[in-house]
Amino acid sequence: MTTDKNFLRSGCPIVSGLDVFGDKWTLVILRDLICGKETYTELANSPEKIPTNRLAERLRMLESEKIIEKSLYQEKPKRYKYLLTEKGRDILPIVQEIARWGNKYIEDTWVPPKWFMQEER
Amino acid sequence: MTTDKNFLRSGCPIVSGLDVFGDKWTLVILRDLICGKETYTELANSPEKIPTNRLAERLRMLESEKIIEKSLYQEKPKRYKYLLTEKGRDILPIVQEIARWGNKYIEDTWVPPKWFMQEER
Repeated sequence: MTTDKNFLRSGCPIVSGLDVFGDKWTLVILRDLICGKETYTELANSPEKIPTNRLAERLRMLESEKIIEKSLYQEKPKRYKYLLTEKGRDILPIVQEIARWGNKYIEDTWVPPKWFMQEER
Repeated sequence: MTTDKNFLRSGCPIVSGLDVFGDKWTLVILRDLICGKETYTELANSPEKIPTNRLAERLRMLESEKIIEKSLYQEKPKRYKYLLTEKGRDILPIVQEIARWGNKYIEDTWVPPKWFMQEER
């Protein structure tokens, strides 16, 4: 993964897209944000148990890519919540298609709630 | 990446799907197979210049996952071509959605040919 926007492995939009959000921890975080998680603690508590250093690093990268934005919800001590931007919400159809494939081909995977699969682009 | 089917980070179909095909070299190979490349040499010559050891390793993994199948097209010396199975072709909608996002949000990315974006599931 690179967060250097000046580095393009090629002009391929698939390759370039994956270079931004294509690592697996990032997609776990995006799934959780789509599902309504907002705080660092909520994100750290997913069943996949993302290591906290990875979580912090990915959140910084997603913010610098303008896929999420941070919003202060408590002053003392300072606490932030993380919200998807339009650029971030536009990742939903990708995640839906991955879920469809996973449910079809990998045994014993969770079936996502209907609203998750039907949500509009 | 793991190729151990018994390892599931969770029952999440998104996470599990990505554990199979979600690394960036694998998706470059799948893009190329969707675009009609068939031989090892054609796959090795993509603009992203996948290292040959990675290419060989990913092809073995994709074959063991039944996402591609090898077919002998020359006897002496033995030469194989690689074809997508139905499980492999079903990755197309994911790749299409990634391309749509890349074209929308990353400057100077190639616009895929129309047939690539319209191909049916």
